[in-house]
Amino acid sequence: MVETTIKKHNFSAGPAILPQTVLEEASHACLDFNGSGLSILEVSHRGKDFDAVALEAEALVREIGGFDDRFAVLFLGGGASTQFAMVPMNLLKDGEKAAYVDTGVWANKAIKEAKLFGNPEVLASSKDANYSFIPKDYDIPSNAAYLHLTSNNTIYGTQLQQFPTSPVPIVCDMSSDMFSRPFDAEQFGLIYAGAQKNIGPAGVTVVIVRKDLLGRSGRKLPSMFDYRIHADNGSMYNTPPVFPLYVTMLTLRWLKANGGLTGIQQKNEAKAAILYDEIDANPLFKGTVAVEDRSRMNVCFLPTNPEHEEPFMKAAKAAGIDGIKGHRSVGGFRASIYNAMPQSSVQVLVDVMREFAKLNG
Amino acid sequence: MVETTIKKHNFSAGPAILPQTVLEEASHACLDFNGSGLSILEVSHRGKDFDAVALEAEALVREIGGFDDRFAVLFLGGGASTQFAMVPMNLLKDGEKAAYVDTGVWANKAIKEAKLFGNPEVLASSKDANYSFIPKDYDIPSNAAYLHLTSNNTIYGTQLQQFPTSPVPIVCDMSSDMFSRPFDAEQFGLIYAGAQKNIGPAGVTVVIVRKDLLGRSGRKLPSMFDYRIHADNGSMYNTPPVFPLYVTMLTLRWLKANGGLTGIQQKNEAKAAILYDEIDANPLFKGTVAVEDRSRMNVCFLPTNPEHEEPFMKAAKAAGIDGIKGHRSVGGFRASIYNAMPQSSVQVLVDVMREFAKLNG
Repeated sequence: MVETTIKKHNFSAGPAILPQTVLEEASHACLDFNGSGLSILEVSHRGKDFDAVALEAEALVREIGGFDDRFAVLFLGGGASTQFAMVPMNLLKDGEKAAYVDTGVWANKAIKEAKLFGNPEVLASSKDANYSFIPKDYDIPSNAAYLHLTSNNTIYGTQLQQFPTSPVPIVCDMSSDMFSRPFDAEQFGLIYAGAQKNIGPAGVTVVIVRKDLLGRSGRKLPSMFDYRIHADNGSMYNTPPVFPLYVTMLTLRWLKANGGLTGIQQKNEAKAAILYDEIDANPLFKGTVAVEDRSRMNVCFLPTNPEHEEPFMKAAKAAGIDGIKGHRSVGGFRASIYNAMPQSSVQVLVDVMREFAKLNG
Repeated sequence: MVETTIKKHNFSAGPAILPQTVLEEASHACLDFNGSGLSILEVSHRGKDFDAVALEAEALVREIGGFDDRFAVLFLGGGASTQFAMVPMNLLKDGEKAAYVDTGVWANKAIKEAKLFGNPEVLASSKDANYSFIPKDYDIPSNAAYLHLTSNNTIYGTQLQQFPTSPVPIVCDMSSDMFSRPFDAEQFGLIYAGAQKNIGPAGVTVVIVRKDLLGRSGRKLPSMFDYRIHADNGSMYNTPPVFPLYVTMLTLRWLKANGGLTGIQQKNEAKAAILYDEIDANPLFKGTVAVEDRSRMNVCFLPTNPEHEEPFMKAAKAAGIDGIKGHRSVGGFRASIYNAMPQSSVQVLVDVMREFAKLNG
C-alpha cells in the first residue's frame, strides 16, 4: 500500500470525509480493479466486473434504506442541482401546484427551477431569521403534486428532526444527511442526494423514486432528463460516472458493515452531543440555530467575542483540524461531522475549544 | 507505490485505456492529494488545491486545442448524451432549422433530442450501408442554426478525415477522437466530448463553445442546462465531478508532455497503419468500412471465415488482449487504439493475427 501522510481531521462541508478503508480500496482499484489487471478508470461500464458494482450499489441502497420494488433506484450524473429541475420536469404538470418549504439557499434553488415547469407554492420560510430554524407550522395543500423538503441545511446547520405527515408525496433533497439516520421509506415519493457528503465522492447523485410517479408530468422530455429512461436501463442508458459510483458502492458496503442506519445514527448522535455540549458549556462560543433544529451533520457556532475568530482558527489548524470555516452567510465556524467522521476527531476539536477557553477565558 | 499485476493490453472502446503514469498519480491522490494529507475524494471543490486543478485543466484544453478567449471551456457532468439535448436547448430557436449528418447511433440520438427543440434536417445518412462510410456529398443550408457532426463513430469504426467548409457554425461530438489529432478551432462553434476515451475517465464532459453563441436560443432554461451559467461560474456553479476532472487534468498534462496534438497524431497514425496494413495483408481478416473513412481510433475487422471468430478471440485473450469484441451491430472485432494505447500493444495484436493466419490459413 501507498505510505500515507498523517491523517488530518477533515471537517469539510462537502465534498467531505470518507472512510479510510474506502479511500484505500479506491486507491488500489485505480491500478487493479477486482484483480482484473485493469484500472477501474479504464474498464467498460458494460463489463461483468463493473456490472456487479452497479447491481451491488443498487442492492445496498435498497437494503440500507428499506426501498422495495415499488421504488426505482437511480445513479445519475450532474449533481443534486440537476435534480432541482428534473423533479418538476418529471413530476409537475404545466400550471399545477407543488408545495415547497424554504429552509435556505438550496431550497430556494429548487423553488426557482420549479417555476419553469409549474406553480411552486412556498408554504413557509425562515428567511427573515437567516434560516436559523426549520418552519413547522404550515398546512400542506392536498392538490399539490408533491411537498418538497430539504432535510438538512448544510450552510446554516439546521436539520428536520421529524418529517411531517403529508397528504401528497414528499420529495426530499437529502444531499447532506442521506443515510445518516433511519427513516420511513413509505413517507417518500422521491429522494435525491448528491453523494459527496455521506455516501461517496462528488460526481454521482442517488435518486430513489416511487415507480408510480414516473412520467407523472406527461411532459415530453429529453432522454437524459427522463427518470423513466434511466429506470428502464438500470442507470446504464449512457456511460455512468463509473468511479464515483464504485466509491459510492464501497461506502455503502462500509455503512452496512458498521450497523446500517441504526448503528450510524447512534454514532452521529454521540458525536453531535459532545460538540453541542461543549458549545453550550463553553463561554467563548455560542450556537447559531434553534436548539430543536440543530443538525447532526453540520454544527455551526460563533465565537462570543468576534476577535477570537482568527486565533481560534489558528489553534484548530495547529491541531490538524481542517475545513471548519463557516459559510460566509453565517460566519464563524462550521464543523461537518458526517458518517465517516470518527468521534476521536470531534474530541480533538472539543479539546481545542476547551484549551482555547482556558487560555482566553 | 502499489505493486501492480501484469498490465493487460486494453483495447476497450470506452471507458478506455489511460496512461499508466496517470493511473499511478490518480491512485496516489486517492490517499494524499497534493501533499495535503487529504484524499482528492474528500476535499472541497472550492479549496485552493482543487481550484488550481480546475484552472490548469481549462488552461490545458485552451493550449492543446488552440481555443482563445472567444471560447468558453466547460467541464460538466451528465455525459455527452446530455449534450445531445443541451446543444439544441441553448443554440436552436423554436421552429428553427439545424443541419445534422447521420453517421450512426450517436448522431441519431443527437437528432432525436433536437426534435424536441427545433427542426433538425438530416442532410445525409449512410444508414442503408450500416454506416460503413461517412457521407460527404451534401449542401449545408445557410439558414440552419448550426451543422452537427460526429467526428468519429466508435461502433462502426469510421472517422471524418476532413471537416467541411460550412456557412454556419459546426457543432461537433468529438467524444471518441477528441484531442487525437490537430484541428482548426476556428471551424467550430461548439465541441463536446465525454472524457472517457482520450482525455480522462467517465463522469466528466468537456464542452467548448463560442461565447457569441451562448444564449442563442433565447429559451428560459433550468440553470444546470444553461451553458451561460456554467461559463459565468467557471464550471463551479455546483459541485463538479471532482475526481474525474482531476484525472482529466492529469491526462491533458500527459498529452502536452507527449507532444500535444501533432505528437499524438503521429503516434496514432503509426498505430493505425500497422493494424490496417495487417488487416489488408492477412487473408483471414477484412476491414468493414470504406478505406478513406477508416477511424484511427476504432479499428473494426471481421474474420473472412466466421468460424474463426471464436478461436481468434481465444488466441487474443491468451496474449493478454482485452476488449476487442466488436459491437453487436457490426460483429467481429474492434480494436480501440486511443491516445494512451502504446504501439507495442498494437504490435502484440498484429503478431497474434499473423500467428493465427499461419496456424489456420
